[in-house]
Amino acid sequence: MRIAIDAMGGDHAPHAQVRSALAAAADWPDTQLILVGNQEVLSPLLGTEPPANISIVHADEVIGSDDEPVRAVRRKTNSSMVVAGRMVKEGNADAMISAGNTGALMAVGLLVVGRLPGIDRPGLAPMFPTLDNVGVLALDMGANMDAKPEHLVQYAMMGSIYREKVHGLRNPSVGLLNVGTEAAKGNELTKEAFDLLQQAPIHFVGNIEARDVLEHKCDVIVCDGFSGNIMLKSIEGAASAIFKLLKEELMSSWSSKLAAAVMKPGFRKVKKRMDYNEYNGAPLLGVNGLVVKGHGSSDENAMKTAIRHTRAAIDNGLITALAEEFSRKE
Amino acid sequence: MRIAIDAMGGDHAPHAQVRSALAAAADWPDTQLILVGNQEVLSPLLGTEPPANISIVHADEVIGSDDEPVRAVRRKTNSSMVVAGRMVKEGNADAMISAGNTGALMAVGLLVVGRLPGIDRPGLAPMFPTLDNVGVLALDMGANMDAKPEHLVQYAMMGSIYREKVHGLRNPSVGLLNVGTEAAKGNELTKEAFDLLQQAPIHFVGNIEARDVLEHKCDVIVCDGFSGNIMLKSIEGAASAIFKLLKEELMSSWSSKLAAAVMKPGFRKVKKRMDYNEYNGAPLLGVNGLVVKGHGSSDENAMKTAIRHTRAAIDNGLITALAEEFSRKE
Repeated sequence: MRIAIDAMGGDHAPHAQVRSALAAAADWPDTQLILVGNQEVLSPLLGTEPPANISIVHADEVIGSDDEPVRAVRRKTNSSMVVAGRMVKEGNADAMISAGNTGALMAVGLLVVGRLPGIDRPGLAPMFPTLDNVGVLALDMGANMDAKPEHLVQYAMMGSIYREKVHGLRNPSVGLLNVGTEAAKGNELTKEAFDLLQQAPIHFVGNIEARDVLEHKCDVIVCDGFSGNIMLKSIEGAASAIFKLLKEELMSSWSSKLAAAVMKPGFRKVKKRMDYNEYNGAPLLGVNGLVVKGHGSSDENAMKTAIRHTRAAIDNGLITALAEEFSRKE
Repeated sequence: MRIAIDAMGGDHAPHAQVRSALAAAADWPDTQLILVGNQEVLSPLLGTEPPANISIVHADEVIGSDDEPVRAVRRKTNSSMVVAGRMVKEGNADAMISAGNTGALMAVGLLVVGRLPGIDRPGLAPMFPTLDNVGVLALDMGANMDAKPEHLVQYAMMGSIYREKVHGLRNPSVGLLNVGTEAAKGNELTKEAFDLLQQAPIHFVGNIEARDVLEHKCDVIVCDGFSGNIMLKSIEGAASAIFKLLKEELMSSWSSKLAAAVMKPGFRKVKKRMDYNEYNGAPLLGVNGLVVKGHGSSDENAMKTAIRHTRAAIDNGLITALAEEFSRKE
């Protein structure tokens, strides 16, 4: 299998990208890692004898984190991200991974790779941590801000297929993010979506409140991209606030400082378990090829995690399964 | 001033309601506390010599937490909550407080007390904790699930007036809950609202991301009731998850158990600071009278906090100020 990596996108690019590719090349000899980016920059980083299953595809432009997504994708046609997308589109790679500008990657998915037939809106689907360490796939986390009820149904079906194919779950449960558990709760969107989800060919378990998402009440949770982003960033903000306050408290006396020293590894563990970035590699579900988002701050390990998840998705024929399901619905 | 208290609503009713009224009656002799509920139940709780500034108004029905809000308010016309609402409507009380069924209290506000002229949708406006302990007023937290851009403008104006009148802030800053800080970010609702908020007679500071709400980036934050609920419950869920995980970690070895004992008061302090329920007494802004929601689990102290905030709102002429502002706009 061939995985194109946008070697220039992300806070730690290109180093983290190159190092993770080298590590992946060693671990998985069946995988061809294609680093897309500036040849002059990348080549020296690979060393004098790069492994046979790593190659470079030259691209001389870079889409920055401040670039306006759609305009950047349209104009910077020789950027590392767009070139990687084109490789997927043209069948020269089985997947692409980028830790660059999220909006631009969505635009690459839509404008370069294109939608899967039968899908109206692709959805970005990261894994959220849960207390039992299993995790929940949440979509859409911001590919499309507004959604119609039928889009939520497509998210639900795509999420189910992903959990089945890539994580091996049987009959994954799907919940609808809502403000209460009763069927009649919610806004116009969720009320209509609730009825449609009940009829959809999925294992729908009803409404899930935002406070219960981390409790693993379902394997897939669906919502519009705006609400999803609010949830994701609220959790992030709350976690950051709590750890700041704890730090203050712990530094307030010598006895608590001592206790803090003892507890430091435990704190770090909890912080890590709450970090949804730990499950790196969120697929953009609904595009006609595998487009995977690594978080912007991905280091070498995080990038390698994204590569591992991408391999699993390729190995298990995710895109074919999605295409089959939705072509049937056309 | 006269404050009607729904003595039968809430997890700890009627005891917490009666005890908080007794405490408030002692602290604030200028305030008449009117306990609305079953005379036979309440009377013995007041003791043989209740203070002169406490009275009981009999109501023989109770709206339960499982009652369907609108139906309950329409049918249980002699319930403690509806009777308290009627007292506000008819000028027999300057405010009402209830820790009962939230949806029913919204319905009492709309159907019994009625809207302020010039307001389309009332908004529920609790205070959120912030890291600097100042807090941010957030609305709407669920009175109306769907909102139009002009409703967000009304929320912004009402929230500003509340912060000015009740908390004494000069020129309070107003933010729009959104998925990014740039003007063009968001869904259809927030994009349109952004433009309207820029023209509104408020101190608008632009978009605020959910992760920054606890950082006190503004004094008032506005959003539709659905997003607001998602934010509120995500923060609640994240806090609960983190404290669960920390507890697990702390119980995992003898040294950490020891450390945990030392840190317990600090933990409790952080938990308390993160608890938006600590700022008890959320006004339902936009109804033609002061209707205040206490959280369902209010104990005596929480109820007394709600009474204190309600006093401040009456003292500072909140409803008159709101009425003046919006009648001008008619």
